[in-house]
Amino acid sequence: MFITLEGIEGAGKTTQVEFIVSFLKARGYETLITREPGGTRVGSQIRSVLLNPENSEIAPLTELLLYTADRVQHVTELVRPALEAGKIVLCDRYVDATIVYQGYARGLDIGLIATLHQLMLDDLKPDLTILFDLGPEQGLERAWRQINAGARTGDETRFENETLSFHEKVRAGYLERSRLEPERFRVVDASKNADAVREATLRILADELPPR
Amino acid sequence: MFITLEGIEGAGKTTQVEFIVSFLKARGYETLITREPGGTRVGSQIRSVLLNPENSEIAPLTELLLYTADRVQHVTELVRPALEAGKIVLCDRYVDATIVYQGYARGLDIGLIATLHQLMLDDLKPDLTILFDLGPEQGLERAWRQINAGARTGDETRFENETLSFHEKVRAGYLERSRLEPERFRVVDASKNADAVREATLRILADELPPR
Repeated sequence: MFITLEGIEGAGKTTQVEFIVSFLKARGYETLITREPGGTRVGSQIRSVLLNPENSEIAPLTELLLYTADRVQHVTELVRPALEAGKIVLCDRYVDATIVYQGYARGLDIGLIATLHQLMLDDLKPDLTILFDLGPEQGLERAWRQINAGARTGDETRFENETLSFHEKVRAGYLERSRLEPERFRVVDASKNADAVREATLRILADELPPR
Repeated sequence: MFITLEGIEGAGKTTQVEFIVSFLKARGYETLITREPGGTRVGSQIRSVLLNPENSEIAPLTELLLYTADRVQHVTELVRPALEAGKIVLCDRYVDATIVYQGYARGLDIGLIATLHQLMLDDLKPDLTILFDLGPEQGLERAWRQINAGARTGDETRFENETLSFHEKVRAGYLERSRLEPERFRVVDASKNADAVREATLRILADELPPR
């Protein structure tokens, strides 16, 4: 089973990953925890090109190709082998992030992104996508607090430097995606406190993944 | 006019670029001299991922996407603006290199590469491509001599480390491309000495570009 976590910056995905991992282990599942961009050694080199705040001249199509390059390497090296070995793959961001950030927010054609994904990844899709939904003011405030506290590194600040309206487009894009594919998406209200978010997240997983 | 230079490692493209530039300047043309991968600031970061000899696990499709990302950035930032300003663009490697290295030599589907190129670059093609043709033994011997003499940097050695049969596929691929598009390609025998190669190259350009 291939599970992805999506949401704007500061939506709390990283915090939830730890809870999800303990939960799945307790239920007897073998898991691969990973993330995009940067889940592989080559991917982490691509990631630092993508997230370097000095690279403001990156063209939207270049950005799309770099995210896709990272994804192809990640899927080839880690995701597909883990799925074939019967593991649960839990991935922090995947193709929906590309559609939402590069498509809805940067204005690239969504059909073009979908065609590229199909061409390069045989359209490998998640079985379940948990969307942590949150208003951008609250998300960015959390993200900045983490940067100031040293819990996020400087190379992750390129997207935090985008305007509020950019992040609003991202949020709206994610919500539209979830309405278009309701059977795949589960939406969690991430404005609540960490305990409530954890509870909602684990309830979703409990429905999908019975104890083994 | 968009001119590209192609050929295996050690075919002498870099040496010829200088002669071509002086020739075009003498004829009164404004030129942009550039290369792939790495013609832009972002591209040089992508280039170092591609050519790092430690990155031997790069999947062929990842490699294809990184070359295409570099190309899109390069065409957007430099090539198209220069062409629109009426300059002659002289580019060391372009799409034929991708078709030959990733397609003929690495075995990726050539139709897939062509589709990706069309999707991402509106199929921008060179008006003239000069192929410096050379046997791989001779090319690799020259390339190694340059590395040992310090005239090539270590980050360019990933392709030099490929087998001879890889470079033979590259050469055969280039020759096949030139037969498929004879109106665009001119083939120069690069096994001759630098003076003879220069003369053959400038004769081709003299035909295409009269003094202004």
